Amino acid sequence: MKCSAFIATSVDGFIARKDGNVDWLHTAGNQTVDMGNQADMGFYDYLKTVDCLIMGRNTMEVIANMNLSEEQWPYGDMRIIVLSSTVSEAPESLKGKISFFNGELRDLLAQLDADGFKHAYIDGGTTIQQFINEKLMNEMTIARVPVLLGEGIPLFGKPGIEVQLTDAETTAYPNDFVQVKYQLHYD
Amino acid sequence: MKCSAFIATSVDGFIARKDGNVDWLHTAGNQTVDMGNQADMGFYDYLKTVDCLIMGRNTMEVIANMNLSEEQWPYGDMRIIVLSSTVSEAPESLKGKISFFNGELRDLLAQLDADGFKHAYIDGGTTIQQFINEKLMNEMTIARVPVLLGEGIPLFGKPGIEVQLTDAETTAYPNDFVQVKYQLHYD
Repeated sequence: MKCSAFIATSVDGFIARKDGNVDWLHTAGNQTVDMGNQADMGFYDYLKTVDCLIMGRNTMEVIANMNLSEEQWPYGDMRIIVLSSTVSEAPESLKGKISFFNGELRDLLAQLDADGFKHAYIDGGTTIQQFINEKLMNEMTIARVPVLLGEGIPLFGKPGIEVQLTDAETTAYPNDFVQVKYQLHYD
Repeated sequence: MKCSAFIATSVDGFIARKDGNVDWLHTAGNQTVDMGNQADMGFYDYLKTVDCLIMGRNTMEVIANMNLSEEQWPYGDMRIIVLSSTVSEAPESLKGKISFFNGELRDLLAQLDADGFKHAYIDGGTTIQQFINEKLMNEMTIARVPVLLGEGIPLFGKPGIEVQLTDAETTAYPNDFVQVKYQLHYD
């Protein structure tokens, strides 16, 4: 089963401010250019390639607090699994949309595979790092947001393993965001 | 006086292993492609645009330990200033090639400016961060080396200030290195 991530970080490697705020994602870069049909920087095309979403609890809470309407909800009826060892009840705004998992990632993937899922979207800094460290992440698309935040929650904050990246596919957007898709290879 | 940096980091943001080793710089990426006249990824063209080099003591020691021959020495007769509050004598292999400075960066730049220098190349992680935090860095060229190291010496490790980056100029090399040149703007 393929696992991939699609994420944005500041050029100094942060995915959010220390308090989880991602306001800078929406104000960074050249706001004067017309992004045309590239405004989502490939996110909706990426979403079409995945059939389930695995995220950490922090990411779930960020999404829950957005209180997205049905129209704003980007994930359709995709199966969403939240990893948590402490929480097992969905916040009000996510009721009926998510399920919880507490256990080994390999067991989760085996179960999803048995259920016919082919490609999992992995979201959240801690969760992404965990998938890499367990050699389960196959592909990462990283957009570099043209700002130095100075401090925040890092994408690669925890000690990790060494991973070779290949097949870089680079897209330089007119708003100064630079996105690279890599394949991951483990020893 | 313009200040810029030209540096490579792993995709997870490290400029060296914990012990300073940069072996991975030379083994990462697709080694099978012919880089042609791009083998230096623009470094020698960049060197032609600068007229002095300011580096930290750690970087000086890395270079000193390379024991470069006159033929290997990349900096010509460029003026090289090493920032240090503790060292003021050059290692044997760098004698006659460097001078030391201990004081305020603004005073150093004022002095270089008075001496007719126009564009300083700033090298070393700590030194680069210091120039950014004092709002003296104007341009950064960052090459992302296609590897996750997992741990090491980070380019942006120290708490820093928030900086807007503009005019991204992206070069995707056939060996999977991706280089972006940014202009820095401070509030």
